[in-house]
Formats: sequence, structure tokens, C-alpha cells
Amino acid sequence: MSSRRYDTVSFLSDFGHGTDAVGIIKSIMRDLAPDVVVIDIAHDITPFDVRAASLALARAVPYLPEGIIITSVDPGAGGSRRVVAVEIAGGAGIVIGPDNGLIATGVALAGGADRAVVLDRDEHHLASPGATFAARDVMAPVAAALCRGVDLFAVGTEIDAATLLPSVVPIPREENGGLSCEVIWVDRFGNCQLNVSVDDLATVWGTAPERARVSWADNVRNLRITTSYADLGAGALGLVVDSTGLLSLSLDRASAARELGIGEGEGVLVTPSDEQGVTVPVTLRA
Amino acid sequence: MSSRRYDTVSFLSDFGHGTDAVGIIKSIMRDLAPDVVVIDIAHDITPFDVRAASLALARAVPYLPEGIIITSVDPGAGGSRRVVAVEIAGGAGIVIGPDNGLIATGVALAGGADRAVVLDRDEHHLASPGATFAARDVMAPVAAALCRGVDLFAVGTEIDAATLLPSVVPIPREENGGLSCEVIWVDRFGNCQLNVSVDDLATVWGTAPERARVSWADNVRNLRITTSYADLGAGALGLVVDSTGLLSLSLDRASAARELGIGEGEGVLVTPSDEQGVTVPVTLRA
Amino acid sequence: MSSRRYDTVSFLSDFGHGTDAVGIIKSIMRDLAPDVVVIDIAHDITPFDVRAASLALARAVPYLPEGIIITSVDPGAGGSRRVVAVEIAGGAGIVIGPDNGLIATGVALAGGADRAVVLDRDEHHLASPGATFAARDVMAPVAAALCRGVDLFAVGTEIDAATLLPSVVPIPREENGGLSCEVIWVDRFGNCQLNVSVDDLATVWGTAPERARVSWADNVRNLRITTSYADLGAGALGLVVDSTGLLSLSLDRASAARELGIGEGEGVLVTPSDEQGVTVPVTLRA
Repeated sequence: MSSRRYDTVSFLSDFGHGTDAVGIIKSIMRDLAPDVVVIDIAHDITPFDVRAASLALARAVPYLPEGIIITSVDPGAGGSRRVVAVEIAGGAGIVIGPDNGLIATGVALAGGADRAVVLDRDEHHLASPGATFAARDVMAPVAAALCRGVDLFAVGTEIDAATLLPSVVPIPREENGGLSCEVIWVDRFGNCQLNVSVDDLATVWGTAPERARVSWADNVRNLRITTSYADLGAGALGLVVDSTGLLSLSLDRASAARELGIGEGEGVLVTPSDEQGVTVPVTLRA
Repeated sequence: MSSRRYDTVSFLSDFGHGTDAVGIIKSIMRDLAPDVVVIDIAHDITPFDVRAASLALARAVPYLPEGIIITSVDPGAGGSRRVVAVEIAGGAGIVIGPDNGLIATGVALAGGADRAVVLDRDEHHLASPGATFAARDVMAPVAAALCRGVDLFAVGTEIDAATLLPSVVPIPREENGGLSCEVIWVDRFGNCQLNVSVDDLATVWGTAPERARVSWADNVRNLRITTSYADLGAGALGLVVDSTGLLSLSLDRASAARELGIGEGEGVLVTPSDEQGVTVPVTLRA
Repeated sequence: MSSRRYDTVSFLSDFGHGTDAVGIIKSIMRDLAPDVVVIDIAHDITPFDVRAASLALARAVPYLPEGIIITSVDPGAGGSRRVVAVEIAGGAGIVIGPDNGLIATGVALAGGADRAVVLDRDEHHLASPGATFAARDVMAPVAAALCRGVDLFAVGTEIDAATLLPSVVPIPREENGGLSCEVIWVDRFGNCQLNVSVDDLATVWGTAPERARVSWADNVRNLRITTSYADLGAGALGLVVDSTGLLSLSLDRASAARELGIGEGEGVLVTPSDEQGVTVPVTLRA
């Protein structure tokens, strides 16, 4: 029906840069939709880590240009899981990916699904010697077709977007007067992002705090909340409002994850600070 | 003679993304052939691993768009090995690279060489402070010249393509009623690709098998052959027909290479299965 | 004043490819300056390593196309360090980055600063939920504005380029009849680049040497100087004139850094060779 065309494809995967997988997708796009620009969101997502990809997509969505978004962290490739395409933002974008929880949060952040299809029209796929590379055989050629103006309903059968597998993004819970949180992302610099913002704390405590008491495993720390890593000062652990607005357990110019020995999935309790006291210097591990 | 022009350069190397090598090549292309699009095939090839690059090129060749292909895994840079350019597919592509076995398989898969030259015309090279970066000083400016319509015979002296160093890609051999194979690639997900397809097995055994007995080192396993990782089921090792049509020793959502402790070059014997029996669960290493 | 436009943005960072940071910058460029081509110089710079980024920029500068250069190794993001833009080469380029020593050497190599500003005009920045991602909120939108023809003085307040923080690039010193040098870069192949060229040696010794005596820690080696790794021969350590014209402690097809156990920052004394003797084979570590 629609003949909307797209000139940008954003592309997120766990393919890495050690093999030709990303290059093959771009080659197919270059062949089938030569004028389209492909933007790499990230490809070094940990293999099979659907949740990490889901969170990366969520962080990127507010910045992505109009166009198609190919997402492939797809351990079920070739199996029975569906490959879907979901139209968002009044047609400004179409997210393509496996229906395994990867895309749901991104779609929700973009305002929800307008239309959704399962990509079951073989005539838009590439013939291939093996079935395990849906990004190559299904997602890329379908993305090219959509860029060229083929309508969403021509590349697949309509499905109810409510049936898409939800993302597993944890929500903080009130507990013992605090918020029970989780480290949802450790970035390349070792910052440990929590699933909680200053606003979340303010909602529970009635006022935006300048400090908080943070507990995990056997540790309790009374930490200052700052807006930059440098403000923490050398060696001092703190909570930094990171670039997405969430709080990160961070050190200045050092990896908090390594120094504290914590990783993604670590449970963290954030409660009101009972002192205006000194930040506690981290004892660096030997 | 010819004035064929090209608008795409595909680029494969072991330069990684930690330094400016890939960026310098793209900068040169942008300067000398501004409208050309550069597609990265892969740059995190293991340093010096000519065979891995040769296999990556072979996997990518069926998908590469028309244009120039720069390949640089070139431990002999600056030394006596030749840098060559080989025209393929009736002029649809020209592969540039060191004559060290990297390009031969890719050229063969594309139907063989039409014309070949050694890149000995300095006027198409960049002057440089050191001789060890042929991709920068020779391959990139020559690729740009070819894109602009300079003929292959203007950038080098013709050579006999039969003198190109062959790639070292092992062929399976019949042995003890089976096929003696090799792990030729461990991908980012830990799948161990063998140099054998179901068709190869069918040719030897007279029928396409659904199971096979696989032996390596001190191990013997009776494995199911499937077309997706998910079909294997949790914890069960199997042989998956991968995206290139070859068989991979694989696990679902886990690294077979790590669990089995095997890597590229491991010898594997594949023989007919003598049971229709159960898949053997992998004992995960502690 | 000027309405010069740019169509290329080169981009250097320590963001890696594991998250969406690089993709977000490119998405912003695609939105705000759709026809601009972004060239990745490198993104796998070691986190926080301003000096490594400074050296990568210096190596790349001679090859970068006209345009904007975004540089982000910025541990002070969100804090009090300045973000600056420096015009170079008569307006052919503008380098954007934190004023932390990253850009000074690159600017100097390009002939010095023409004009410089601190990026303090909020109207060219993006609103954001957190202050720690200046590449996203400040550098990218300013780069887009400059590409579109906005003048440098419209995106910030003029500063004296002489106040920019200098890069910390060590200079070799004469010492005991030799040159006291340093390993300034270990590349992906394990070559250990020294901050010294054959010309530097010739200046001190009166003649360009073919050999040199190299000492570090408890080691002394009499090494041949060659122009390619292959010329060294298997297992022989030597000094290779690398692609930038500097001398590298290198092995053929093996990592000198790993075999010798040395890294960036290692002090090395280079003195005239007193023998025409044999190269000393490296004893490979167990």
C-alpha cells in the first residue's frame, strides 16, 4: 500500500568483527539497495546476550535516524522462533529482528508498534546453503525491499504486536525502605549501570538525594551522587548520573567493575544515606 | 584500454580496530576516489593468519558487490613477496592483495582469474616514510585508480595467474570408511566448522545421513545432523549444517570449542553412525 | 563569517564496538548532516589512554581527508575540562576534542592552529539526560553544524591555541653516546615502536647506521636495521623502519612485545653497534 522509502539501515548484532558476517550483510544491502547508508549500532555484543542487545537498542533508539533497524542476536536462527518486522513511530522506522525479547523494549520506547508482521514471504529472502544465518538470508534482503518502497504487509503476514516476546529488563522494587536494583550494564570503562535514576530515588524518598547508601553482597557504602566521573576524585567510588540518566557505580579513570569485582546481574540495594559523611575510598584489589 | 569504473571497495584485513590502520586506508580512498563506498568485510582476523583470511574471503565472495576487493593479511609487507591484482568475473571485480595464498581460493570461487598483474607501477603508489604498510602505500591508491577507470594493465605488469600462491585449504580424505576432516574455523559463538558437507558424506556413503560418528583425539561421539542450533536441544552436541552449507560441531547457545577444548586445525574423523541412538549430553568442563 | 562546508567527519575514540556509543554518534551525524561521510579512525583505543589516542591521531593526520575530526578519549567528560575546536591547515580541517592533551600533537603536525574556540554555545548542543557523553551531546552536533557551514566562531568563544594542553609525547635524549628512547606504541602484531628514526640516529652518530646496540632492563642486543619484517629472518629480533619512519623492535611473523615481555613506556637505550656481527636469535619464552 504505502510506498514509503528509507535511505538508512541501522544495524545491531553480536557478530563481532573477526569474521565476515557484518561485511556480508552490508554487501547484500549494497547490492539490493545501493544508495542506502548502513550505520553500525554495535556488533561486539556478547554472543547470545539478548538482554544486552535489548538494552543497547533501547539506549540507541532515541538517536537513530529514520529508517530500518536490523537487530540480530539470534541464537535460535534456523529454528522455530519467528523473525519479525515492526513498524514504529508512524512509519518513521521499522525494526527487524528475531522475536526473542531483543526488540520489545526498543519498540516500546519508540511509542509502541504500529504494524507488525512475521517475515514469511520467501520471495523476499535469499536462497542459501544453510539456514542458520537469518540476518543474511531474511533480514538484509527484507530490509532492502522495505528501503526500496515495498510495503510491510508485502514482506510478511500480519501479527498482533502484543504477542511479541517481551524484553527481560528488570524494574527496581521497593524493599526495606530502599530500592532493590540490579547492575544492568557494565560499559567498556567499567562503570556499573543500575536500573535506577535519581528521579526514581526522589519518588520513593520524597526528595532528590545527594548521597545514598549502596549495598551489594557483603558490602555497604555511603556514596556521593555526582554528574561526572571527574567530580568523584581519585580513588573514590560514587554514583554518577550517566549519559542515559541512570545511576552508575563508578570510579574516576578506573574500572569500578574490576575494582569491586561485580558484573552484570549483581543485585544492589539503594537506601537513603544516614550520614552526610566522607566518601569511603576504595581499597584496590591486589 | 578498458575504462570500466567501480563504486565499491570491499576491505578485509588483520589490522583490528585498535589503531588507525583501517581509518588511514579509508581516508586515502575518500581523498582519491571520493564517491566510492568502502565495505568492511572483517578486520579482526587473527594477526598473520593468512588461512583464516583466505577462508573469510571465500565465505564472503558470493555476496560481495561489484567492485575492488582489498585484502591485507600481509606479514611479508615491504619484503619480496608480490602484491597483485586479479580481475575476476568478467571484470565485475578486481581482488588486490599479497601473493601469499590469501586470495587464491576467493579467486577460484569467483570462477578464476581473467587477468592478473603485479603492482609494480610506482606512479600509482603513495610515497611513504616506511615500506611495511603496502595496504596504505600500494593497495589503497591502486584501488582508487581502478575505481576511477584506470585499466588493470596500467597499474602493473601482467603475470600468469597460474603462478599465484595457492591457498592452503584442506580437502577431506577418505580414510577407514570415513572422511578425515579438519576444524577449519571456530566462529565467535564457538561453532567448529569442518571442511565437509552433508553432500560430501552422501557421496561417500551413498545416502545423505541423519547421524554420524565423529572422532577426535580420544573422543568418539554419535551425533545428530540438524539444520539449526536450537534443534540440538540444551547441552547436546551435534553436527549443524551451517550458513555456508558445511557441518559444524555445535552446541545450542554455548561454545562447542570451549566445552570440547578444540580449536582450528583439529583433525576429526567422520564415519557412518552405527546406531539410531540417543545424543550424548556433553559433560561441561568445570 | 566563513561559510565553508565539509563533507567528511573522521572519528577517533576509546568507545569500542561493544556498545552503541559509536553508532549513536553516527546516527546523530546522519540526522543533522545527512550527506556527510563518517570515517572511523579507530575506536578500540585502550580506555582512558589519552596518549595512545594522541599518537594514533598523529599517525593518521597526514592521511585524513579535508573535514572535521572528532576525537574522544575523554575521562573528564562532564567535568571542568574544556571541549575545544581547533581550525587547521587554512581551514581544511577542524579538530574537535577534549582539551586534555589528545589533540595537540595532531594539530602541530598539521601546521598548528589557525583559530581555536571552546565549545560553550549550548544552542548547538543536544539536550541530554546525563552530562558524561560530550561526544554525543557536544562534539557530534557541533561537527554537524560546522559541516553545514556554521562558522567556528558561532559554535564557541575564541581561545588562545597556545593555552591548549600539550600532548605528552616523549622526545629521545642523548645519553652516554646513545639515544635514550621509549617504546611509544605496541601494535596489534607486537611490534614495539620507538620514538626514534634512522635520521635521528644519523644526526647523533654522523652516519646512518645499519646496525645498533639496543639495551632495556637487563638486556643488550646488537640488532640489524631493516626495512621489512621478512628481512629479519625467522626468530631474529631486529629494528625495522616501520610505516611511519620510526624504528620498531620487531620479529618476523611473531610478537616482539610478547617474546621480550615489554610494553608501552619501556625505556630503551640505542647506541652505536660495535660489531658487524651476527643477529642474536631470540630465545622464545616457554
